Amino acid sequence: MTQKACIVGGGVIGGGWAARFLLNGWDVAVFDPDPEAERKIGEVIDNARRSLPALYDKRLPDEGKLSFHSDLAEAAAGAAWVQESVPERLDLKHKVLGSLTELAPKTAVIGSSTSGFKPSELTSEGARVVVAHPFNPVYLLPLVELVGDAAETARAAEVLRSIGMFPLHVRKEIDAHIADRFLEAVWREALWLVKDGIATTEEIDEAIRMGFGLRWAQMGLFETYRIAGGEAGMKHFMAQFGPCLSWPWTKLMDVPEFTDELVDLIAGQSDAQSGHRSIRELERLRDDNLVGMMRALKKSGSGAGGVLNTHERALAAPAEAELPIMGDRQIPQSWTDYNGHMNEAHYLEAGAAATDRFMELIGADADYIASGKSYFTVENHLRYLDELLAGERLTVTTQVLQGEGKKMQLFHFLKNADGKLAATMETLLLHVDLNTRASSLPGAEVGEKLKAFADAHKALPFPEGAGRFVGQKAV
Amino acid sequence: MTQKACIVGGGVIGGGWAARFLLNGWDVAVFDPDPEAERKIGEVIDNARRSLPALYDKRLPDEGKLSFHSDLAEAAAGAAWVQESVPERLDLKHKVLGSLTELAPKTAVIGSSTSGFKPSELTSEGARVVVAHPFNPVYLLPLVELVGDAAETARAAEVLRSIGMFPLHVRKEIDAHIADRFLEAVWREALWLVKDGIATTEEIDEAIRMGFGLRWAQMGLFETYRIAGGEAGMKHFMAQFGPCLSWPWTKLMDVPEFTDELVDLIAGQSDAQSGHRSIRELERLRDDNLVGMMRALKKSGSGAGGVLNTHERALAAPAEAELPIMGDRQIPQSWTDYNGHMNEAHYLEAGAAATDRFMELIGADADYIASGKSYFTVENHLRYLDELLAGERLTVTTQVLQGEGKKMQLFHFLKNADGKLAATMETLLLHVDLNTRASSLPGAEVGEKLKAFADAHKALPFPEGAGRFVGQKAV
Repeated sequence: MTQKACIVGGGVIGGGWAARFLLNGWDVAVFDPDPEAERKIGEVIDNARRSLPALYDKRLPDEGKLSFHSDLAEAAAGAAWVQESVPERLDLKHKVLGSLTELAPKTAVIGSSTSGFKPSELTSEGARVVVAHPFNPVYLLPLVELVGDAAETARAAEVLRSIGMFPLHVRKEIDAHIADRFLEAVWREALWLVKDGIATTEEIDEAIRMGFGLRWAQMGLFETYRIAGGEAGMKHFMAQFGPCLSWPWTKLMDVPEFTDELVDLIAGQSDAQSGHRSIRELERLRDDNLVGMMRALKKSGSGAGGVLNTHERALAAPAEAELPIMGDRQIPQSWTDYNGHMNEAHYLEAGAAATDRFMELIGADADYIASGKSYFTVENHLRYLDELLAGERLTVTTQVLQGEGKKMQLFHFLKNADGKLAATMETLLLHVDLNTRASSLPGAEVGEKLKAFADAHKALPFPEGAGRFVGQKAV
Repeated sequence: MTQKACIVGGGVIGGGWAARFLLNGWDVAVFDPDPEAERKIGEVIDNARRSLPALYDKRLPDEGKLSFHSDLAEAAAGAAWVQESVPERLDLKHKVLGSLTELAPKTAVIGSSTSGFKPSELTSEGARVVVAHPFNPVYLLPLVELVGDAAETARAAEVLRSIGMFPLHVRKEIDAHIADRFLEAVWREALWLVKDGIATTEEIDEAIRMGFGLRWAQMGLFETYRIAGGEAGMKHFMAQFGPCLSWPWTKLMDVPEFTDELVDLIAGQSDAQSGHRSIRELERLRDDNLVGMMRALKKSGSGAGGVLNTHERALAAPAEAELPIMGDRQIPQSWTDYNGHMNEAHYLEAGAAATDRFMELIGADADYIASGKSYFTVENHLRYLDELLAGERLTVTTQVLQGEGKKMQLFHFLKNADGKLAATMETLLLHVDLNTRASSLPGAEVGEKLKAFADAHKALPFPEGAGRFVGQKAV
């Protein structure tokens, strides 16, 4: 059954939550008195539609229903998750969270997006509300800091994992939880550096993204330093780096005064650095970079890549059809090229992924490969019949042309959202022994399953475009 | 003429400098009294060999010569760059930098890798030595903080850019330059969080890499916050986030005491988190992740991706041969799959890149495409003849089979380091008008250049494997 999320407060954070739930198949009911809320949330969801599905090589569930409500009771009715993202004022949080505790189903998780307040500050009752603090853009970044009652946060964690997020349980409540404490420390130091004329905003950004930012995106702080310590380990690193804490470099005690002059200095430098791009352009650039980096991390499974792999495994397999559907996905921005359409190599990538899925279907899966047997491709023939664009849905169905002995010959049909044929890929594989790297017969079970498909597909017409050479005239 | 770098101090940082220069074609002379120096530097260079060239889709220059010296004068003789990376003790730095100022050619840049000291502290003379502070792993991360005399740092910057690095000139000298001040602020706060039992080392790493680490790797701090400010801009963001600086969350004034207990707590948590992997494994994991993320950033050109694109454009084109060499590169780790060899889709990626290079050769380049004309691939046929492994060199030569009217038919030969044929790719393209998306004749100049290649290549034997269908028996 479709689940419902109630989103209270529809700014960048609330909109991000709405998008995250919606694109994972939840119905989403939004409560926000701002007359602009529908437009603002719509823009966030548009950004999410072009980026979140692009992280996965499988299709996300069908989108849920999005609705806007002026009545809080109506928005909260039947919700399994209620998320408060109103401005960071304690009186307002008290009022909203008090109403939600009355109005929401007893079984609902009630989460607050607060970046600063502790759960014990948020309500007088305490246990019912948990801090569920996400990071912008909420539809892409996995992290949610969970603080509060153990049973409530455990329930919340399960829901968050089901929508592809990474719940991090904070062991003891503390102002600003964990990540924002780091952000505050860096922000404060950065303000000093700008104020004192050591560096501009752009130079500070370069100092981060050309160096340690790249380290932190995949390993964080301690694992990075463990490596820096080398064979001698973490203790050695601490012995080296420890002492400088006692002659601290950073401007520990002081907070720079927030004068108009400082605000103007920073805003002016930021305009010079990024003002040639609109916020919408910057958002898309950020999202494309995040998608590209997070897709790269899927390879090793580090950090966000591991979260994606786990979530992707849990996504439903495509429905049954005459031919097995071996692929169903959205085309990521990073698959397009200078001609403004999907690059030729990614047609083959999609086809090769379909071959992988078909191998799993006949039992030639990861365990089988670990046992020292696999299939190697010896030949591919692709015909490009139509352009495919970023954001389009792509499905792949597979017909077995040959499946006996060492050979497996497949024909993949790549279709766009309308079911129109965009490409075909004919592929011939040989079964190999991974130790000798020589061809060999498949295991009995794999061989039988493959043959069953081959026999069943013999009844189908031989595909147009199969058995042809490059440049051969159409019949 | 090959240039020479002198590396004084061969730890992780000195070794990283050695690798960076060596793999960019410089001769490298190392001075380090440690009897283990040769082994240690060798390990760093091995890591660099498997990762640095994998960032580029072109081949780096031939490696320079690596030599080890017990005489500082000999190591420094004829060097264009001398880099000091000895332990962070001022007396030692004074001694080494004093000698180097005497021994190095007057024209050499003398750089110090110091993370904490200001140039004015490093020598009595001052101007001659510049701080050139890199980040681990030096062979992958582009950032080098340059501090010191304007003319000297400008000269240094030019060299650094030529070896693919990003020099950041620090406007005024300050303890610990820029990035390490941020690292220190976060490190100190992280120590408190562990000590107070708020989070373990692993949880802190997750709080970073699942959230803001991903943001910072591509945009840094200020541009990220500019987006968070939305249409209202940076001033709006500062108005929101400014006030909390006056009730600071972080433990500003205090430095946690570095007791044995705290060191044991952190080292123990780090063992639990990462102890199942050796430092060598962690280094390779880190490097593979960095390569994957930095390759992803090449697409947008953000941050490190922009540095790579600039450096790649400056790399030499392959030498002349009977057939034009349209590709010459090292195979990145990220191109391999579960079978332990280059994945079939990346054979096509390499072939498609060769097609792109050939298009440039005949004038169908970025400007031509911007003018609304291009070629679209309509058919590809690939034969996979041999496995290709990560780290191997791959060259692609191209024979024109057809080049008249709207058609361009190419045959790419993919060869491994020994010149053995690993794959062939036959590709048929049609010239198109990018506005109508319909086929059209190429511009006169492009058409003539293509025809000239086609005519010249007619004299060559028709390639074995061309004009064949999938599964066709060899003759």
